[in-house]
Amino acid sequence: MDQDFVWKDETDLLWGALSSGGAFLVVLDPHGKPNPMTIGWGQIGIVWSRPAFTVLVRQNRYTYECLRAAESFTVSVPAPGKLKDELFLCGTKSGRSLDKFRAAGLTPRAARLVHTPIVAECLAHYECRLLARTLVALPDVADPEIVDRFSYTDGNTHAAFFGEILATYTTPNSAT
Amino acid sequence: MDQDFVWKDETDLLWGALSSGGAFLVVLDPHGKPNPMTIGWGQIGIVWSRPAFTVLVRQNRYTYECLRAAESFTVSVPAPGKLKDELFLCGTKSGRSLDKFRAAGLTPRAARLVHTPIVAECLAHYECRLLARTLVALPDVADPEIVDRFSYTDGNTHAAFFGEILATYTTPNSAT
Repeated sequence: MDQDFVWKDETDLLWGALSSGGAFLVVLDPHGKPNPMTIGWGQIGIVWSRPAFTVLVRQNRYTYECLRAAESFTVSVPAPGKLKDELFLCGTKSGRSLDKFRAAGLTPRAARLVHTPIVAECLAHYECRLLARTLVALPDVADPEIVDRFSYTDGNTHAAFFGEILATYTTPNSAT
Repeated sequence: MDQDFVWKDETDLLWGALSSGGAFLVVLDPHGKPNPMTIGWGQIGIVWSRPAFTVLVRQNRYTYECLRAAESFTVSVPAPGKLKDELFLCGTKSGRSLDKFRAAGLTPRAARLVHTPIVAECLAHYECRLLARTLVALPDVADPEIVDRFSYTDGNTHAAFFGEILATYTTPNSAT
């Protein structure tokens, strides 16, 4: 395992992005169209003895459907403070009825090791192969504030998707 | 949310430890006795808009039983290359029939914000409040190599326990 995957400079950019405007999770939909969704949550570390990136997606999101059928996903991180409008659009619109890459004026660029593209306008990128999915289920949420704040009582909980990080890199000459 | 939680220097120590000998996951057993288990896997990031540490524990481990009943856990990280024998013992013996703190010659020290103690001999520490648990279940593991290597077909999969990171710090004057 290449340990550099999990604690390179990209990780600092990622934490910064998750704590502010977010980053783009990209996954191919069942028709092969790439769909970007804004994420503010994510975890990095080692799982199954591999460098792993975990994203959480709610079950009613189009991205959830896509991830269930996909083999990979990518996470693209904007430069600090950039792409605010694009992040907003990709966090509030659904890819079910909209080509969000086109609507946001973002460019899908071929990834290095997976079929899912990255966002060309971003600075740091993670390419991940899907390993597993786990559903957050009640009553296994210990904190009632989470159940209430995220309306889990209607069954629409999040799922955690674990991806093996195959590549991590920056593209300093991004389109922005 | 204090963003410093997730990308402080402790994280570098943690990644280094997980990739070599491991770190200690401590949890109180149902009788209130602290039980350390060696972990080589773990993830850090943001979940439910909080800084989060996720550990994966197999369902047949005593630590799994403890975590199901506990309200918190801690992760203590040895200085690089230290406590190899202690990590080995706490990764191969079960707390069901053994006081692993005593057997390993380790010292439980009161944590700052949770009831679960830290390992005094370690350098970096995470104090976490349990938020949720998710079970890894078949057929939701996409990689057959994982199913085979970790013998998941008998149902003894791992569970992911999500903890909110309440405190992260180093204790340079540790007992080693």
